[in-house]
Amino acid sequence: MSGSGFGKLFRVTTWGESHGPALGAVIDGCPAGLALAPEDIQRDLDRRRPGASEFATSRAENDQAHILSGVFQGVTTGTPIAVMINNTDQRSGDYARFADIFRPGHADFGYEAKYGLRDYRGGGRSSGRETCARVAAGAVARKMLSALGVEVTAYTISVGHIRAEKIDLAEARRNPLVMPDRDAYERASEFLRTLAEQGDSSGGVAECVITGVQAGLGEPVFEKLDAMLGAAVFSIGGVKGVEFGGGFSAAALTGAENNDAFFFDGKVRKAANHAGGITGGISDGADIVFRAAFKPTPSIAKPQRTVDTAGNNVEISVTGRHDPIIVPRAIAVVEAMAAITIADAVLQNSTAKMSDLLKLYS
Amino acid sequence: MSGSGFGKLFRVTTWGESHGPALGAVIDGCPAGLALAPEDIQRDLDRRRPGASEFATSRAENDQAHILSGVFQGVTTGTPIAVMINNTDQRSGDYARFADIFRPGHADFGYEAKYGLRDYRGGGRSSGRETCARVAAGAVARKMLSALGVEVTAYTISVGHIRAEKIDLAEARRNPLVMPDRDAYERASEFLRTLAEQGDSSGGVAECVITGVQAGLGEPVFEKLDAMLGAAVFSIGGVKGVEFGGGFSAAALTGAENNDAFFFDGKVRKAANHAGGITGGISDGADIVFRAAFKPTPSIAKPQRTVDTAGNNVEISVTGRHDPIIVPRAIAVVEAMAAITIADAVLQNSTAKMSDLLKLYS
Amino acid sequence: MSGSGFGKLFRVTTWGESHGPALGAVIDGCPAGLALAPEDIQRDLDRRRPGASEFATSRAENDQAHILSGVFQGVTTGTPIAVMINNTDQRSGDYARFADIFRPGHADFGYEAKYGLRDYRGGGRSSGRETCARVAAGAVARKMLSALGVEVTAYTISVGHIRAEKIDLAEARRNPLVMPDRDAYERASEFLRTLAEQGDSSGGVAECVITGVQAGLGEPVFEKLDAMLGAAVFSIGGVKGVEFGGGFSAAALTGAENNDAFFFDGKVRKAANHAGGITGGISDGADIVFRAAFKPTPSIAKPQRTVDTAGNNVEISVTGRHDPIIVPRAIAVVEAMAAITIADAVLQNSTAKMSDLLKLYS
Amino acid sequence: MSGSGFGKLFRVTTWGESHGPALGAVIDGCPAGLALAPEDIQRDLDRRRPGASEFATSRAENDQAHILSGVFQGVTTGTPIAVMINNTDQRSGDYARFADIFRPGHADFGYEAKYGLRDYRGGGRSSGRETCARVAAGAVARKMLSALGVEVTAYTISVGHIRAEKIDLAEARRNPLVMPDRDAYERASEFLRTLAEQGDSSGGVAECVITGVQAGLGEPVFEKLDAMLGAAVFSIGGVKGVEFGGGFSAAALTGAENNDAFFFDGKVRKAANHAGGITGGISDGADIVFRAAFKPTPSIAKPQRTVDTAGNNVEISVTGRHDPIIVPRAIAVVEAMAAITIADAVLQNSTAKMSDLLKLYS
Repeated sequence: MSGSGFGKLFRVTTWGESHGPALGAVIDGCPAGLALAPEDIQRDLDRRRPGASEFATSRAENDQAHILSGVFQGVTTGTPIAVMINNTDQRSGDYARFADIFRPGHADFGYEAKYGLRDYRGGGRSSGRETCARVAAGAVARKMLSALGVEVTAYTISVGHIRAEKIDLAEARRNPLVMPDRDAYERASEFLRTLAEQGDSSGGVAECVITGVQAGLGEPVFEKLDAMLGAAVFSIGGVKGVEFGGGFSAAALTGAENNDAFFFDGKVRKAANHAGGITGGISDGADIVFRAAFKPTPSIAKPQRTVDTAGNNVEISVTGRHDPIIVPRAIAVVEAMAAITIADAVLQNSTAKMSDLLKLYS
Repeated sequence: MSGSGFGKLFRVTTWGESHGPALGAVIDGCPAGLALAPEDIQRDLDRRRPGASEFATSRAENDQAHILSGVFQGVTTGTPIAVMINNTDQRSGDYARFADIFRPGHADFGYEAKYGLRDYRGGGRSSGRETCARVAAGAVARKMLSALGVEVTAYTISVGHIRAEKIDLAEARRNPLVMPDRDAYERASEFLRTLAEQGDSSGGVAECVITGVQAGLGEPVFEKLDAMLGAAVFSIGGVKGVEFGGGFSAAALTGAENNDAFFFDGKVRKAANHAGGITGGISDGADIVFRAAFKPTPSIAKPQRTVDTAGNNVEISVTGRHDPIIVPRAIAVVEAMAAITIADAVLQNSTAKMSDLLKLYS
Repeated sequence: MSGSGFGKLFRVTTWGESHGPALGAVIDGCPAGLALAPEDIQRDLDRRRPGASEFATSRAENDQAHILSGVFQGVTTGTPIAVMINNTDQRSGDYARFADIFRPGHADFGYEAKYGLRDYRGGGRSSGRETCARVAAGAVARKMLSALGVEVTAYTISVGHIRAEKIDLAEARRNPLVMPDRDAYERASEFLRTLAEQGDSSGGVAECVITGVQAGLGEPVFEKLDAMLGAAVFSIGGVKGVEFGGGFSAAALTGAENNDAFFFDGKVRKAANHAGGITGGISDGADIVFRAAFKPTPSIAKPQRTVDTAGNNVEISVTGRHDPIIVPRAIAVVEAMAAITIADAVLQNSTAKMSDLLKLYS
Repeated sequence: MSGSGFGKLFRVTTWGESHGPALGAVIDGCPAGLALAPEDIQRDLDRRRPGASEFATSRAENDQAHILSGVFQGVTTGTPIAVMINNTDQRSGDYARFADIFRPGHADFGYEAKYGLRDYRGGGRSSGRETCARVAAGAVARKMLSALGVEVTAYTISVGHIRAEKIDLAEARRNPLVMPDRDAYERASEFLRTLAEQGDSSGGVAECVITGVQAGLGEPVFEKLDAMLGAAVFSIGGVKGVEFGGGFSAAALTGAENNDAFFFDGKVRKAANHAGGITGGISDGADIVFRAAFKPTPSIAKPQRTVDTAGNNVEISVTGRHDPIIVPRAIAVVEAMAAITIADAVLQNSTAKMSDLLKLYS
């Protein structure tokens, strides 16, 4: 099993390599009767598209989404939705020189150890390019969730040591680093330009907020909502940490400080949200809030020591077309994985109560 | 699906509530021919047993493991291994007063929203008591991994603001907080006693190290090894953050600082381990290292504001038998979930190569 | 994976061997709020109990069902329902002589080839005794289906060459062969007594009818309703053939003869039911009808040629406590597997339409 | 879940409708290092291609397979293999008149009941055209199995009442009905021509033989090899019955007649194969033999009574391009589903023994 499927009822399967003819996603289990147009998918794809800013690789892909099945007369039919995106600007030549060498920070060595061979062109299946299929699938999940009043929004909360001090979503939509704080964005831009000149890259942190989630989502024990979101986000290349609500800082608090008190004002609410909207693995009705820490882009021009497949110790400089930071382009991917996970949780939760079953079957 | 199963080939299903007659695990997919004795399971169960120290609930359970199937003449047969642990010291009376009230920081409200009703005795299925079934299953995974040279070890790296400055595993085995630093342990004990007097509790962080893992484990894209470990660890009650290797601190590094250089000395090795043993979602042959942040025990005697099922705003004081901190008793659970995940990854990896298949079938 | 789990949302996992201390089932995903009492399960268990008639093994098991979790105050909570049945009348001694020999018609040789060893006591996991766990799980599914107006009924349609000419369900409930035709029952009894004297056994066919099934159940392509029922029924030991509606006889008809015409009388109905209630893999609103062909009990006293584990050609006579025919006691198992499959299909179908989702989430 | 995935380790996901732009399959979990060329897939696709004979629809599709991922330099990489087949000769116009009417014997009514809407063009997803994606995936499984010495061969054993009296595989490859008996083929051709003139169709039976299967395949209890093959074959449109070895006739035999005696001649063998190569759900080393009964093509020109979506009772004559019998073109599909199932069973069986695991990991 090469793990290319995700989700139990809202099931996404992706395929494709960085330098193959195309990439795609099959979304199986999307309910019938959802209005879906290519633009719904294109909108999100454009947000992760390369070549869009000075902080993104100059690889020029138009990333056009083609819906090949599952939609009839503008509406989903309940059968698998196949989406395909053609690759147009592969430059495999750039990679021939990495055919026999393991790039530090990349999956090259792991793939070689696992499979005994690998498609070295642009990292093949392990390339960030694979994520455009996730974004396409996420757009379908997002459309389904919108119909239920659920919205998923992510942004860059920090670049290296530079942290956004305020959350201005309009600003996040405006700047290429997707930072919700103009001043932080400007300092981060400077920082990234300097690193780029040095042939280096930076890490950063993405934050995601999910609103409109009803209480009760998530399955107890092993399929808790945070466990499923954790798997979804850790499956994104470069993520080294995930935390919900207070996250690691909660480990330094006391119970009295960390517990979210409930109160009633016509509806059960919480006076705080240290839990990040998930308590005991089940959504508690508050916004779901999580952060993902991304390591720096491993492809850097700076010389590094490594090994080739023959076992020689060599030096390597990974030039080519690479982002100086992963986070901004990963924002759409974080949203996609979150949307897919919540969509699946919503479907699974539909069978939790006999009373709901009786509503549907009588 | 109430999410009580975990793993694809090494499949664990658990059942049971805090105050039911028993809890259990069914381990399906453990290879045949593994020597397995009740003591192999008892050893780990005893480490998470309640009543073992001043920092653990005084609930007196002997947590005796009974193997009911899957083992014949001391060896696994390949059929499901069923393990049962009887509950003996339930005091449901303690909980009657929580039948109509939502304890802050607990799953009470989420379960009520999801299922329309709940077993309020000790939190029912959402109780930490559920984890003894995980530990039993983890012990089987651990036995299988040992045969392959893989060992899983966790310990308490911090209690509140008190952090272990050194890693002395012998010391961690000696003290009830499972801290690998005697001095940190003594300060943490003081801190916890003070909190206990105040009817409060503390959060903390667990660290886990997995040695002897071959390179190549983990499935690309959605079932990366860190994604599966992330799901496994986030499924443990109270975990609010998980990070691998450098984790969140990697987000503040540059590529040159964070990449682990490879070198060859008869075998491909890494000069550093910022990646925590997983690069591109696949094990890279170095030790796997991750940390889990636990929130403070939500059950505290200090008065808290909350709501009852009738929608009244009330005050609650959760007295009873509760740990002042989750981490020390969760150590065995963290190891169990890690072992189960690695065992499953090992089995899945067995079919990655045609050359391996030909080894087995000719 | 030793395949001990069945179903996607209504998920059943079984464990236990013929001569172990107990057998059990874990039912995960049963909706919360279903009234469930031990008697609901006991009723079905008693129907497959051994020692109940001259045509069943004299092994005396009381097959008492113990519900260990998932039910609180007489109602399901949505968490896993664990049911355990203790073994009380094992006579492993009877089997010691089969430890090193492969019984013809049994899984002995296959298990040895697969696992390299086996629990030879009563066939271990491959024993028909394993089915009592299925029956317990099926009783839960049946209770859930009854609430939705779905009923599952099976009976013995033929014993050897003796076929029931009429379907009198009251009669089927009365006689130990569960035949719906008194005259056929009497002739079959005679036939079985004669075979028993000769140390031989007979095959037979079970028929199952499911009423009250709404149209639309089953998932297209690979998880069609007949594909899932087919897997469920073929998973019962001794089943060599399964057919729906006309079944094999449909292969000799023409389209004009075999198509079921639709007509409308306030509701879309069919003028015939050659399809057996499933058309194109989806339930069509008519009764679901299928038949399962069971081979003769392989354990016979008549001498047979076989091989021992050392590779010697030997002769064997399988004396002991064996049914002269599998079908009558398998009737409750056929119903159980059908009920579990339909229950799972009902849950899966709950998320087929956006309109249903909006009903539940707004 | 619209059930478009099959298999646990060798996982196949298909997509596409009869009149959409294309159809495809994603094969996830094929081991790395298998030589795979487009011709390997094309060979099987050509066998089920329409327009190939007088007994197949005249729809002219060249069914060209395009491999879009998972193969690099002629060898599988272990990542998902995506295959796409474009539709070129859709004539949706033919179907506009069926938009509001339920064709007898088709899934139209079930889909409408399930999804509230349907792609009526050529049956959309429920069309036999969907099976070309299965055949493409099956070709990959077949290539993998060949490397292990396993071969899968199916043929038409009967057309209506006309049954092949001998099995001449060369003859089966020669004639368009894929019948292994020249004389039976000639009589069947006459019979089908007569039916075609009458605007009617015929049912038939396919038989499949799998050679070279090692003993030990299949997982006990719910995932027995016959249960998985049963699901695979029943998932093919038009199949109403499946039987292994003696099948339904075994129900009329005695144990002494039906048991296959073992003997040893350097290897454990069976003196007969009433079991059809599967005993107790596990392969026993003999050839696996099963039959599938197909109903007559439901699309017939003869007038039939049915209902439209408005609830009017109407008469319908399904003219257009339809096969007078399903079986011959389904032969490649039966082989494909059998190959996929066995390939998955082989992969799953790789982890049955600790001794095998130690072979791979040390």
